[in-house]
Amino acid sequence: MSFSIAHFLAERRDGAVHRREDLLDFARLAGSKELPDYQISAWLMAAYLNPLSLEETVGLTLGMAESGERLDLAGLPKPWVDKHSTGGVGDKTTLVLLPLLAACGLTMVKMSGRGLGITGGTIDKLASIPGFRTDLSSQEMIEQASRIGLALTGQTPALAPADGVLYGLRDVTQTVASIPLIVSSILSKKIAGGAEVIGLDVKCGSGAFMPTAEAAEELATWLSKVGKACGLSLHVTITDMDQPLGQAAGNLIEVREAFRVLSRQALSPNEKRFENLCIELATETLEAVGQHDAKAVVEKALDEGKALEKALEWTTGQGATTSPLDLSVAEPRQTITANQSGYAQQVSALRVGEAVLEMGGGRKKKTDVIDLTVGVETLVQVGDKIDAGQALFHLHGNADQCAAAAAVLQDAVTVVQTPVEPRPLILKRL
Amino acid sequence: MSFSIAHFLAERRDGAVHRREDLLDFARLAGSKELPDYQISAWLMAAYLNPLSLEETVGLTLGMAESGERLDLAGLPKPWVDKHSTGGVGDKTTLVLLPLLAACGLTMVKMSGRGLGITGGTIDKLASIPGFRTDLSSQEMIEQASRIGLALTGQTPALAPADGVLYGLRDVTQTVASIPLIVSSILSKKIAGGAEVIGLDVKCGSGAFMPTAEAAEELATWLSKVGKACGLSLHVTITDMDQPLGQAAGNLIEVREAFRVLSRQALSPNEKRFENLCIELATETLEAVGQHDAKAVVEKALDEGKALEKALEWTTGQGATTSPLDLSVAEPRQTITANQSGYAQQVSALRVGEAVLEMGGGRKKKTDVIDLTVGVETLVQVGDKIDAGQALFHLHGNADQCAAAAAVLQDAVTVVQTPVEPRPLILKRL
Repeated sequence: MSFSIAHFLAERRDGAVHRREDLLDFARLAGSKELPDYQISAWLMAAYLNPLSLEETVGLTLGMAESGERLDLAGLPKPWVDKHSTGGVGDKTTLVLLPLLAACGLTMVKMSGRGLGITGGTIDKLASIPGFRTDLSSQEMIEQASRIGLALTGQTPALAPADGVLYGLRDVTQTVASIPLIVSSILSKKIAGGAEVIGLDVKCGSGAFMPTAEAAEELATWLSKVGKACGLSLHVTITDMDQPLGQAAGNLIEVREAFRVLSRQALSPNEKRFENLCIELATETLEAVGQHDAKAVVEKALDEGKALEKALEWTTGQGATTSPLDLSVAEPRQTITANQSGYAQQVSALRVGEAVLEMGGGRKKKTDVIDLTVGVETLVQVGDKIDAGQALFHLHGNADQCAAAAAVLQDAVTVVQTPVEPRPLILKRL
Repeated sequence: MSFSIAHFLAERRDGAVHRREDLLDFARLAGSKELPDYQISAWLMAAYLNPLSLEETVGLTLGMAESGERLDLAGLPKPWVDKHSTGGVGDKTTLVLLPLLAACGLTMVKMSGRGLGITGGTIDKLASIPGFRTDLSSQEMIEQASRIGLALTGQTPALAPADGVLYGLRDVTQTVASIPLIVSSILSKKIAGGAEVIGLDVKCGSGAFMPTAEAAEELATWLSKVGKACGLSLHVTITDMDQPLGQAAGNLIEVREAFRVLSRQALSPNEKRFENLCIELATETLEAVGQHDAKAVVEKALDEGKALEKALEWTTGQGATTSPLDLSVAEPRQTITANQSGYAQQVSALRVGEAVLEMGGGRKKKTDVIDLTVGVETLVQVGDKIDAGQALFHLHGNADQCAAAAAVLQDAVTVVQTPVEPRPLILKRL
């Protein structure tokens, strides 16, 4: 029986089970724009309300992955590795993990998306580096990965075009927050990108897409099961995003923070927390590909400057005209201080993200132009002892931007009188 | 708060309650094509799965009615009346009721749709009369109704354009069979058409859109409640559509049957059954507008030839170049006879409708061109005593068309050995 969109819509509407071949056909036809948007949208809403089963999600994922080209990494040294984070406030791990793991001998290829909402995108952060190109063609990706072991590009219509179509429609039909649809979107791009080993970081907390531990764990489990059923080798880590990741949240200042970690500079406690996460995630990925004594290998790549060297090869390779080490960052214009003494019980990643958004450092809608220079530095973390008058946040921006951020950050740190345990960085490994 | 389609979609998705002003805005923006199809489609699927409440349906109906022009009948004698049937096999009641009630002094204005599926549309039947126009403008509708008391047009983009948009998308997104959406579609057109009094005939049985008594009664109840909340005076009748309505099912032969009833010719038992329904429905409408001794008034309009006279004024007024009384109908080409003697337990309207469709007398898809001359005459009804060899159906069409119809009609009449009660014509009044 050939594919019938009417039958396919009725099945999803009624919560019936799609056949594998129909899911493949649907993804192919969506990617080639042979299906009208209004039928895809109706299906997406039906799929939101009658969610796909795990088995159906595997079919959709494979269909989306096959809807366009697939990067052919044959000839490049294995393992072929990608990493993905579900995103959160101050999440610049990609900027460290890609060169760090490439310095450890892995071939790293990644397709990245732009950010929307409070979780800025890697592509936006990289735009802070003058000249850096995020529009590599498939050919350029392979050539560069072959030459220096890593390459990153923005979403390209050549790879998994069905994801571009479905994601675009989900965004305007209130059907983003569906786990099977999220999972197929993430994994189809990974498969089309050619990777075989994937490190996945699911963020959990106020500054993440998945605010609760239950939601994050459900997403992590689905990613793991569907990924494995699609033939990927993957490991999933659930990490904390209730407080911002690291010190910097913005674009330019996050790039600076990543390169401070890569160049082993003296780090603040919040920068150190970010560095720890990078080392943990890199270690897990190395272990997943069979590396003995993985943590020592990671530390050595940082200590001996190989990770930094790889990062500079990377940025130069993709067109940077200024070294990220020479990026000029203005002094913060304003500092927010503590009203009272005590212990930090909460440092809200949500508020910090909203503050950056209010300053113009993120997009409220797709067409917004981002101010790459603004941002918030968070100077405390949960469990810290706080003294009245102590600096909590540095703000980067003009007077209006800082005033807007300050208003949002008013209740961002909760100070209590009894000591508070620090929050763990890694919540769970799958 | 101004209308936000994102918020409106999320509400429907989550089964929340829409505000009245948002429903009005949604319908207006859909009608003026200011909302993209893909957002309307996603909303339709959400509305199918999380149905609108009665109160919300009232809001949507009023919004759709106000989405374009409204026929202004001011100056025409009251009451301003419309009738609607949910449609079924052989349902030509409009062709009789419009002139019959106009002959009784009512102002009848009606917008009719084309048929899709086994239930042919009034517009198609009327196309059997050479020259008859079903594309009257609003101005022409009012002029003619003012002159002769009745006018009928096909769906026009000027009236309730939101219904055109929503109906078109429902048809291709598997969201037709939702009672709140059906009700708002029917009633918005009636309100935009200017009528204040509506007679509604909900068909129930194998040849109808609502096959079960429960479904028909639910639809009837919704139509009644929503209509009254919209300020209409309406009465709803549930009538039998388990066997075909009358003798003829087709287009030309249904017009002929309607004019046989209007001209008081000697009728076959099945034609008589159709006539009875017309008289009952006309009587109910007259009673609803306060006419005493309504049935006698209806009978008199038929007996004295006033209904026929009105019908001929009507067809001439709308451009007919041949009197419907002079339409030439070929003799039936084939007759299907009974294999055995007994009693007719079932005479399937579904099978008769399918047979007409197979002959090309209906549309399988919107773009199909109808053969107006084909059709099936049903010669028996439920409860009849049947003799082996007795004629059950006459077929009108070429040899291939008749062969196709005969195949479908093979099991259309069920004959049993014990006597069977005739089916009542009117199942329920609301």
